[in-house]
Amino acid sequence: MTDRDPAPFDVAMMRRCLELAQQARGQTAPNPMVGAVVVQDNQVIGEGFHPKLGEPHAEVFALRAAGDQAQGATVYVNLEPCNHFGRTPPCSEALVQAGVARVVVGMVDPNPKVAGSGIARLRAAGIEVTVGLEEAACQRLNEAFVHRILQQQPFGILKYAMTLDGKIAASTGHSAWVTTPDSRHRVHNLRAGCDAVVVGGNTVRRDNPRLTSHGMGHNPLRVVLSRHLDLPDAAHLWDTTEVPTLVFTTHGANPEKQAILETQGVEVIGLDEVTPAIAHAHLYERGSLAVLWECGGTLAARAIADGCIQKVLAFIAPKIIGGEQAPSPVGELGLARMTDALPLERLQWEAIGSDLLVEGYLSTEKA
Amino acid sequence: MTDRDPAPFDVAMMRRCLELAQQARGQTAPNPMVGAVVVQDNQVIGEGFHPKLGEPHAEVFALRAAGDQAQGATVYVNLEPCNHFGRTPPCSEALVQAGVARVVVGMVDPNPKVAGSGIARLRAAGIEVTVGLEEAACQRLNEAFVHRILQQQPFGILKYAMTLDGKIAASTGHSAWVTTPDSRHRVHNLRAGCDAVVVGGNTVRRDNPRLTSHGMGHNPLRVVLSRHLDLPDAAHLWDTTEVPTLVFTTHGANPEKQAILETQGVEVIGLDEVTPAIAHAHLYERGSLAVLWECGGTLAARAIADGCIQKVLAFIAPKIIGGEQAPSPVGELGLARMTDALPLERLQWEAIGSDLLVEGYLSTEKA
Repeated sequence: MTDRDPAPFDVAMMRRCLELAQQARGQTAPNPMVGAVVVQDNQVIGEGFHPKLGEPHAEVFALRAAGDQAQGATVYVNLEPCNHFGRTPPCSEALVQAGVARVVVGMVDPNPKVAGSGIARLRAAGIEVTVGLEEAACQRLNEAFVHRILQQQPFGILKYAMTLDGKIAASTGHSAWVTTPDSRHRVHNLRAGCDAVVVGGNTVRRDNPRLTSHGMGHNPLRVVLSRHLDLPDAAHLWDTTEVPTLVFTTHGANPEKQAILETQGVEVIGLDEVTPAIAHAHLYERGSLAVLWECGGTLAARAIADGCIQKVLAFIAPKIIGGEQAPSPVGELGLARMTDALPLERLQWEAIGSDLLVEGYLSTEKA
Repeated sequence: MTDRDPAPFDVAMMRRCLELAQQARGQTAPNPMVGAVVVQDNQVIGEGFHPKLGEPHAEVFALRAAGDQAQGATVYVNLEPCNHFGRTPPCSEALVQAGVARVVVGMVDPNPKVAGSGIARLRAAGIEVTVGLEEAACQRLNEAFVHRILQQQPFGILKYAMTLDGKIAASTGHSAWVTTPDSRHRVHNLRAGCDAVVVGGNTVRRDNPRLTSHGMGHNPLRVVLSRHLDLPDAAHLWDTTEVPTLVFTTHGANPEKQAILETQGVEVIGLDEVTPAIAHAHLYERGSLAVLWECGGTLAARAIADGCIQKVLAFIAPKIIGGEQAPSPVGELGLARMTDALPLERLQWEAIGSDLLVEGYLSTEKA
């Protein structure tokens, strides 16, 4: 962090980087979302963002747009420029070659092994570097990427919708709908920022969901956890013409059903044991950053117990449904005393129409 | 309502009336909370509030304080002055006799049979009367009184504290504590504004609560609903030295236990049937305005089904406890479809420390 208040212009430019970065929301995995802006004499002369894996980084697009004017310019970027030859040459070199005078960095590379090396390279070349501008917003934008790098796991988000009396469905299982269209729209948008969305077999059987972003952007991979592959022959999730679906099941479970699913283009992976942790490990190998758990209470509890959930999004609808047998959002965690409850941190509350969205992070010690 | 924006001074004086009225919070039943201010030349020359049943009304105290200066003054009062000889002479007469020039009234008398007669009397005497200033706040302050007058029932408030996953206790029943001390302090304050607080036998057996306002003000009558009188011999609620306790049970249930309770000063009333509706009817006869239901899910559901709950206060703690068998705040209501859920209206959200308080009113058609 700088030791004085940042200039409003610098803040505005960093926010523009975050805006640009989000143009590729949901599409960069396993890479982070990055935006860059090149400024000469308080005028933006180049902008760019990293669109997807294998494409150039944000700085490269922004420098290309600026052309020769980049000489002596200031470059804003929300994440420390890379300093290694990966799929693309290092951005630190590109910045040095372009002759920029100053680089403003939102946050350092979260990988402790390389953190600071890009900045060091720039400084060694005589470029003035400011680090940590709008850092909290930069960290938040790439929280899934940071978690993936540090924990070698995808970032898990548990989302549920419940009534004000804590039920996700009536006693009969009927649940359409708990929340208003505004909240459901928000969920579609949330999916557009995720790489995978996970449900259990129960949700497929009961709700037959689509789990798409409904035209809000990127569609995540749809993932079903089903130990016995006791799934319906027909379901919206088996329509894979636009969005792929992956089913994790036990090795050799229900071969006939597996054939039926595969005929429809569904990928089926047999595991020794079907657990949230093993599913997360597979999704990590596939490069997933953010995994959205939209499952019922039983699977949600297993995902929490497995350490797969970092963030909770609870949509609360202002209505009372009651029901002794009505399901609640989180099943058995084996916590006997209220003092054992898992605390949520960094809470945020937001009204969405008449519903309320409560967001929080599970304490990192537990996760 | 006036057809133009009210003068800021008038608004300030009406807010002062509401402040004064609340000095007697919880102590006026079955009367409303009323405050009055007398102003001459923009100077407050008298203030008063109605302290309790049988004591003079707010206007009388305020006029007494003003003395002869009340001649030609403006009087502010949050509720229409009474116009009938009850326990005290009518306030409308007192205002006329004092020779005041103008009266500003927050809201008309909610009783449709007498509404407007106090105002008419003042106008007939040549006094200028403005009605409806800060009306929403005035209605809210006396919402329990208004409900009592219109419905001939006490105003029922259901309060519960739950985790973000909708549980009021762990699977074991352990529930101390769901919320933070800040929220519990708020509940103590809430009790100070109520005339009775109700729990079921389960809550006495499991939690052994005190149900007092912990020094925050008035203590409500503590009420237990117990069909079989299967209650412990010793409990905090049986200490009636400072706060009375009333137990509703079935006629002739457990006479030995009844004797034990009565020895400790507990009032025991036998009913043909122990239902929330019958309990409410008794509390109405005793003059209760606001009845706070702090019971578990089973009794809460019965109170809702009986139409005894008008307002819901849900304290939500940002933690996850899980539990297949963990209790939730509202038991069986027999609502099979999510679309049957009872909607809450006029929602308010408030952060209390790290907890969240959601307030809403059950739709009047249902109540």
